[in-house]
Amino acid sequence: MRRLFSLAVAGVLSFGCLASFAAADEGMWTFDNFPAAKVKHAYGFAPSAAFLDHLRKAALRSPGCTASFISPDGLVMTNHHCVLGCVGALSTAQKNLIENGFIAQRRQDEQRCPNFDVNQLVAITDVTATIHAATAGKTGAGANAALRAATVQVQQSCGSDQTVRCDLVSLYHGGIYDVYRYKHFDDVRLVFAPEFTVAQFGGDPDNFNFPRFDLDVGIVRAYENGKPAASPDYLRWSENGSKAGDLVFVPGNPGGTSRELTTSELTYERDYGLPATIAQSEELRGIYEEFARRGPEQAREVNETLFGLENGIKVQSGRRLALVEPAFFAAKVAEEKRLRAAVAAKPALRAEASAWTEIERVQALRASVARRQGAATGATRGLLGTAITLVRAAAERPKPNAQRLPEFTDQALPRIARAMSTSTPVFPDLQEVQIAFGFSKLRETLGTDDPLVKAFLGTESPDQLAHRLVAGTKLGDPAVRKALYDGGSDAIAASADPMIVFARAIDPQLRALRKDQEDRVVAPSRAAAERIAKARFTVYGTSIDPDATFTLRLSYGSVKGFQNPAGAQVPPYTTIGGLFERATGAPPYVLPKSWLDAKSALDLTTPMNVSTTNDIIGGNSGSPLVNARGEIVGLIFDGNIFSLGGDYGYDATRNRSIAVDSRALLEAFSKVYHADALVAEIRAARGR
Amino acid sequence: MRRLFSLAVAGVLSFGCLASFAAADEGMWTFDNFPAAKVKHAYGFAPSAAFLDHLRKAALRSPGCTASFISPDGLVMTNHHCVLGCVGALSTAQKNLIENGFIAQRRQDEQRCPNFDVNQLVAITDVTATIHAATAGKTGAGANAALRAATVQVQQSCGSDQTVRCDLVSLYHGGIYDVYRYKHFDDVRLVFAPEFTVAQFGGDPDNFNFPRFDLDVGIVRAYENGKPAASPDYLRWSENGSKAGDLVFVPGNPGGTSRELTTSELTYERDYGLPATIAQSEELRGIYEEFARRGPEQAREVNETLFGLENGIKVQSGRRLALVEPAFFAAKVAEEKRLRAAVAAKPALRAEASAWTEIERVQALRASVARRQGAATGATRGLLGTAITLVRAAAERPKPNAQRLPEFTDQALPRIARAMSTSTPVFPDLQEVQIAFGFSKLRETLGTDDPLVKAFLGTESPDQLAHRLVAGTKLGDPAVRKALYDGGSDAIAASADPMIVFARAIDPQLRALRKDQEDRVVAPSRAAAERIAKARFTVYGTSIDPDATFTLRLSYGSVKGFQNPAGAQVPPYTTIGGLFERATGAPPYVLPKSWLDAKSALDLTTPMNVSTTNDIIGGNSGSPLVNARGEIVGLIFDGNIFSLGGDYGYDATRNRSIAVDSRALLEAFSKVYHADALVAEIRAARGR
Repeated sequence: MRRLFSLAVAGVLSFGCLASFAAADEGMWTFDNFPAAKVKHAYGFAPSAAFLDHLRKAALRSPGCTASFISPDGLVMTNHHCVLGCVGALSTAQKNLIENGFIAQRRQDEQRCPNFDVNQLVAITDVTATIHAATAGKTGAGANAALRAATVQVQQSCGSDQTVRCDLVSLYHGGIYDVYRYKHFDDVRLVFAPEFTVAQFGGDPDNFNFPRFDLDVGIVRAYENGKPAASPDYLRWSENGSKAGDLVFVPGNPGGTSRELTTSELTYERDYGLPATIAQSEELRGIYEEFARRGPEQAREVNETLFGLENGIKVQSGRRLALVEPAFFAAKVAEEKRLRAAVAAKPALRAEASAWTEIERVQALRASVARRQGAATGATRGLLGTAITLVRAAAERPKPNAQRLPEFTDQALPRIARAMSTSTPVFPDLQEVQIAFGFSKLRETLGTDDPLVKAFLGTESPDQLAHRLVAGTKLGDPAVRKALYDGGSDAIAASADPMIVFARAIDPQLRALRKDQEDRVVAPSRAAAERIAKARFTVYGTSIDPDATFTLRLSYGSVKGFQNPAGAQVPPYTTIGGLFERATGAPPYVLPKSWLDAKSALDLTTPMNVSTTNDIIGGNSGSPLVNARGEIVGLIFDGNIFSLGGDYGYDATRNRSIAVDSRALLEAFSKVYHADALVAEIRAARGR
Repeated sequence: MRRLFSLAVAGVLSFGCLASFAAADEGMWTFDNFPAAKVKHAYGFAPSAAFLDHLRKAALRSPGCTASFISPDGLVMTNHHCVLGCVGALSTAQKNLIENGFIAQRRQDEQRCPNFDVNQLVAITDVTATIHAATAGKTGAGANAALRAATVQVQQSCGSDQTVRCDLVSLYHGGIYDVYRYKHFDDVRLVFAPEFTVAQFGGDPDNFNFPRFDLDVGIVRAYENGKPAASPDYLRWSENGSKAGDLVFVPGNPGGTSRELTTSELTYERDYGLPATIAQSEELRGIYEEFARRGPEQAREVNETLFGLENGIKVQSGRRLALVEPAFFAAKVAEEKRLRAAVAAKPALRAEASAWTEIERVQALRASVARRQGAATGATRGLLGTAITLVRAAAERPKPNAQRLPEFTDQALPRIARAMSTSTPVFPDLQEVQIAFGFSKLRETLGTDDPLVKAFLGTESPDQLAHRLVAGTKLGDPAVRKALYDGGSDAIAASADPMIVFARAIDPQLRALRKDQEDRVVAPSRAAAERIAKARFTVYGTSIDPDATFTLRLSYGSVKGFQNPAGAQVPPYTTIGGLFERATGAPPYVLPKSWLDAKSALDLTTPMNVSTTNDIIGGNSGSPLVNARGEIVGLIFDGNIFSLGGDYGYDATRNRSIAVDSRALLEAFSKVYHADALVAEIRAARGR
């Protein structure tokens, strides 16, 4: 599972052939710079402009994930783990949809997901010159302010139509600035979800592993004006599925990669950043695991959060393992050396040579400035984070749009307003544990004598303070939140809610820390990265793809297995029969009753999951796997363990994407779930 | 706190002057090779043979710690955290000695500690030639068997007197073999323990930090034949304490250092070993923290275990941070390069040059062989470990002494027999959590498809299996354990206890793994390390101290502060007044009532804790801090954060030991605790 795009995916152990990172099948290409000729050379098929346009319009961005239209009536396919929040929110004490799954046999049974949307990329416009002109010659706070103003201008250029959204996208770390214009679908309704146990069969032990046997699918439908949205650009289901060696494409929104980072940045990540994050996440994982043992209610409360945390731990650990692999790191060092040598050799670029040393200088600040900022952010979890948002919203909203913190611009505010007024489950016992953990880690990171720690804790312990705040707050109630949001600074100033009182008291220090970090770490890093990007263009052009940015990309590759660490060849397909063999009946290897009942009706030789060479990463979850005819042959939901190093570089020998095979999906829809309307819609769409 | 010697202590951030590791005050010297001339040169005082003999006989080894005689009647001083197990075992539901402390005002009130002993080093004999002859030309399993036989011969040479104990000690990783002969005191009784909150004031946040304010002291008494033991070699209390710059000695048992490891071994530790250990420990820490929230009973159950675990995490994290510090690691690389160059230049040593590449070869096996063995060991926690011990004891005891696993030799068996028959608290709820965690990590480390994982879990989940074993076992009952131990292989074969049944089933695989590890990793590593040690002797002689081995050593240094990371000078003393200022009243900054009541009677300017330059490490806990007259001026209980890198090298600029000042101890004994008999005995001993 690879949903949360901040928890990007990361490769491991020992990399076979890394003489150059520009390996076959590498690349998360933008749709306006897709290397069709390269694909033609490797696979004998060159995607046409129409083929690319069709994929771009069929693919969708959803919160932390990818999705795609699979019928002309707005039917959308994504992963179960991408709609898990929706499935949970639609569950009640009587009807646990996570456990039991959901099927809307009729359109009127489709249920709207709170806080879920999909976005279709309709246009890309290059605004590099404008942005570079706006920030030219500025540094630190000045550069941040200029970029912020330009971002707001881009957003405003879209107008006030709530179905349109414009984002300023920085590619190549500031080398290119584009405006991505989206059609925004706000009303998305749940159509189908399988039981959690088969969607996430194998749980954390099998996560990022292959062979794999998951039915990680969720089906929703986009609505417009209360009716199913028209979606003429949709993907048809393949008649025959795929076979080993087939060329396959993956359109999707890879969340982030770090392939353009300098070796000093990678060293910081390897030695300090990742280890610190992993250590805290492991401790919190233990807390959640044991919290779940308090009882079934607590297990339910923490389930999705634990699931995301464990995914993140695997990702971060995999990234760290890639960076400590000597051959892998040596390749990154060699790559940097080549570029720096090229820069030194070109008189026009010589001025950019200092960019690497500038970034090295900034790394030293990360241990102090960024570490403080990170610890402070980690100490404002749960409802305390909500309180900070309310306090800041009251202060920011009266300001001119361009002068606000970026999360409070006019384009961003509707989402905040909705989050404040929407009823989402809040569990005080879990809140208390989470908030206390944040306080405790703040003290551990900065030390008892640190002024910020003293400002937070005063004479209370982390547990005491968290208990007082959670026991006294009313912020779990959406009506209270809405009143505070709507009431603005007067309401905030008058509030005696302990969470608000506390947030008011610490916010000035949090803002100062954030500004310090932005001015002294973010701005100079960005400025230096832009100079390196400029140098890289001059040397290599756009023959390499930009780091992932949770925007739409296209990857190409083929259906292929790999060699595992023990030296055995892992074939690219598993089967439904293998799923039944692996089911011991003990968690996380439990099959739901629906599957056990359907066993005799199923063709056990049907391919279940499939591995391909596509270069993807977290955020690609829910991407369609598409053949050269543009048809669906699978549904991406994971990568193998070697894909985790993909954050820093692609290893063609072993990095594999994992998808649910389209044949298993249809077999399950029809024979396990008898989701006849769904199957009929997919089949009908194929014929059109 | 630095008790568990397996949790050795480790340095950090940025090392000031590491041009050479042979820095001033460095060294954990054996008593038969103490550099008196070096001390004379540095401090103008050369310890005489009589001075050294006196310290050697006054210092004691206790489980995981150090202690010392402080009166002629067997009175012994050590740390509170070293006797915490005893204090806990002597507690009852009505009388919580951990919370409330303990004072025996009369000798008859002194209470025997279960599983606590002290050992006095009475003789050191060099047997290097014998051992080298026994293992010469042997490799793998053959070398292990020869060394095992020689070890048993050494133990047997001591005879069957239970008050004598002989250990074969390997120094310089096999460069020197000595026999250390101890007088063994089995009957040790608790005399004084303060309340936990003041003994461990500041808890985990202040651990390995300075300024510090702990009264980490425990007083016990050694008995012989039911009477206080005669201890003519005891340490007198200093009249005036210490002052900045004073020369101070620390006799003690540093648990282990890794200063002689090769850079390939350090690289493995830095990139794989330590990160894996830290990750698992952090998760378990979270589990324990949340387990403690189940209720006050559970908090009590897990308190000491959590305390040890958090200490270990700090130590391991500190060691990792030292190894990722570029200057620190570069110094280790330079050191190795110098030695290898010297080896290459001497024809007589040229054959040893391959030892480094041999160790490098073995590192690759650690990721497979050692990792499997480690995961298996971690999966046999708590009562399951007890079951394995019972199953193995039954199989080993009938064998000839020299052919048994080393933990079942005649010298080792009495301790096992006592552990089996002694009543120690067993908490089923905690056992279940711990055992399930071990199973879960086994699966995570080796993967669901691994044969060992399948042998462990079958069709059960980690939680299910742990629950079944713990719910069904009777091994928490000492009578049951004793019957199984005494009953030997017949009793084991006949047992239907699920824990025994499970242990019987998996033990053959565990033994095979262990043997694989010993033959393919341990034996070749030792053989290569011996060759490097031989080369090092030839080049440097014994002018450098051997790596610590939890045997008696002597360190010298002086009372001195240090510069903290922010650049401020930290003075070497804190005061009792500072303790009161730091007490917020919230855990872990709570003072017990005894101290709050005594405040007005106390001299608040009395030095509380003191920092010195002595080179010590985990296992030195409880060591006396002694002046040049051989008098007690403090009680070692910790090191500062920079001492944690001491595992790999000593940084004279910032590595500091932390002790309770002797003046604070006396002030507390007399004015807070009114422990009049104790104070009288210390005062009387001073006069004798």
